[in-house]
Amino acid sequence: MRSLLLGADVGGSSTRVAVTDPDHGVLAVARSGPGNPNLVGMDGAAAVIRATAERALAGVDGTVLAAVVGLAGVSRAVTEPGFLGAALPDRAGPDRALVSDLAVGFSSATPAPGGCILIAGTGAVAARVEGEELRDQRDGWGWLLGDDGSGFWLGREAVRASLDVVDRGAPRGGLVAGVLAEAGAADHPSLLRACYAAPPSWLAGFAPLVSRWAGTDPVAGAIADRAADLLAETLAGLAPQPSEPVVLGGSVLSTPGPVRDRLVARLPPGLVPLAAASGLVGASWLAARRSGRPAAGLHARLLGTVDSAARR
Amino acid sequence: MRSLLLGADVGGSSTRVAVTDPDHGVLAVARSGPGNPNLVGMDGAAAVIRATAERALAGVDGTVLAAVVGLAGVSRAVTEPGFLGAALPDRAGPDRALVSDLAVGFSSATPAPGGCILIAGTGAVAARVEGEELRDQRDGWGWLLGDDGSGFWLGREAVRASLDVVDRGAPRGGLVAGVLAEAGAADHPSLLRACYAAPPSWLAGFAPLVSRWAGTDPVAGAIADRAADLLAETLAGLAPQPSEPVVLGGSVLSTPGPVRDRLVARLPPGLVPLAAASGLVGASWLAARRSGRPAAGLHARLLGTVDSAARR
Repeated sequence: MRSLLLGADVGGSSTRVAVTDPDHGVLAVARSGPGNPNLVGMDGAAAVIRATAERALAGVDGTVLAAVVGLAGVSRAVTEPGFLGAALPDRAGPDRALVSDLAVGFSSATPAPGGCILIAGTGAVAARVEGEELRDQRDGWGWLLGDDGSGFWLGREAVRASLDVVDRGAPRGGLVAGVLAEAGAADHPSLLRACYAAPPSWLAGFAPLVSRWAGTDPVAGAIADRAADLLAETLAGLAPQPSEPVVLGGSVLSTPGPVRDRLVARLPPGLVPLAAASGLVGASWLAARRSGRPAAGLHARLLGTVDSAARR
Repeated sequence: MRSLLLGADVGGSSTRVAVTDPDHGVLAVARSGPGNPNLVGMDGAAAVIRATAERALAGVDGTVLAAVVGLAGVSRAVTEPGFLGAALPDRAGPDRALVSDLAVGFSSATPAPGGCILIAGTGAVAARVEGEELRDQRDGWGWLLGDDGSGFWLGREAVRASLDVVDRGAPRGGLVAGVLAEAGAADHPSLLRACYAAPPSWLAGFAPLVSRWAGTDPVAGAIADRAADLLAETLAGLAPQPSEPVVLGGSVLSTPGPVRDRLVARLPPGLVPLAAASGLVGASWLAARRSGRPAAGLHARLLGTVDSAARR
């Protein structure tokens, strides 16, 4: 009987499950809509994850050695008894775990047993990870209280800078002109009205304007500088060592760009960050670790096969 | 026939109208509930202000020379045609004006024709005032985008400092212990939950803890320092001159306290701030200005008689 691993990456926009043969790599990937309990409720999340896992396993013979489900804000789901029983089919076997998306993100980039991860997407959070566990965490306090340097923060600062420039009657550079155009606002009162009429998360939509103008508009450059300062500070709270991996993830940090470039320049000497890859790789790797001593090359095989399996 | 002035101070918690004899001071004050259009609608605001003005005028013989209604966020009301006609009785006469609460706040402290005012209550805003007009304005962008150094800002920083101390496992000083106790929270997740379950304005309730602990807890002291920095910066945007009056108002700045003391220490040399007084004084003084050249001692008489008239 073939041995299999099951890894699930459950997010706010999609739910994905990968089935892996440890000796060959990812065999099958299935994908569904949002599976985050905050969006679809606990029962809805369990149903989506289970249906996606069943589709991924369909047509693959073998015995699942271990299954790992990665989920954002995992604490609430963990306290719900029976969640994993409902969220995975019997075929997923008895060795199953629900882990934080931060642990999954860390293991997506490296087979190392531990290190740090810094995520800046709409929110911003850093964590020290040991296998499936989070040992320490910084920020991740949400838009109202924290997420310093995140996409929400960048967008809000872009609006603040626009209000400031308009109030002072200063010349409007690329960033401010872009913010006013995107908000459909001509002046201070109409910009303010637009911001308070929308839900707060709307502000995150202005973040790409900061990246776009950071190189040529000093107003945008200063915001990108400050974001990098704040993200570096969040990571520094975990005292990462040059000897351990540091993984960068999230839309603001996963691809080269002004905020990522500025952050990397601010990291302690000798610290070379890794880029987060597919959460399916991280969850599958954590499942491999649960199943015993994973083969040396499996992490690289996961990275090499996840995309082609997802396209099948 | 006796000459009279009518001044109204319309706010989120109360509506007050004063009737003044320019030669003697305030004769009568009437008070009602909230009259701000944002809270009670345009028609509701007009009805409350009118009823309060009628009560203030009842039993006072004379002709109203001028009437001034001070209102927060005046721009929307100004654009509503006929608002002042509906909000004041015929007896208030034809010379009537709707002015910003910032202009009223400035004239509450001084008979000078112009200068600057900095308000820090739940929000924070600075304006350059010339009579009834606002010539320039800084911040006042609301809790989501600005109000730097305000009560909301102070309360949010108190919570942020608490999350930071708890995350780092650092010793909990007076401020952090106070925040956790007031939020009924024992740890990071319960504090975060409490903050997101309440409306954002709930955070302003933690501001008094910063004032209470600023002298003995360095965490609170640092927040008060930063608030004073930000408020000084907001005011500096108006480039106030030592030769012109600067008025401080709002719950954070109107009475001595750690934030006010720190702000005053940061003002440009030679600049001695005045404290905002009752909005009734400011509105009545602006009405006196409308009516012609006000008597030299009227402003002092308004300050001296408004409280006793309000108690009658």
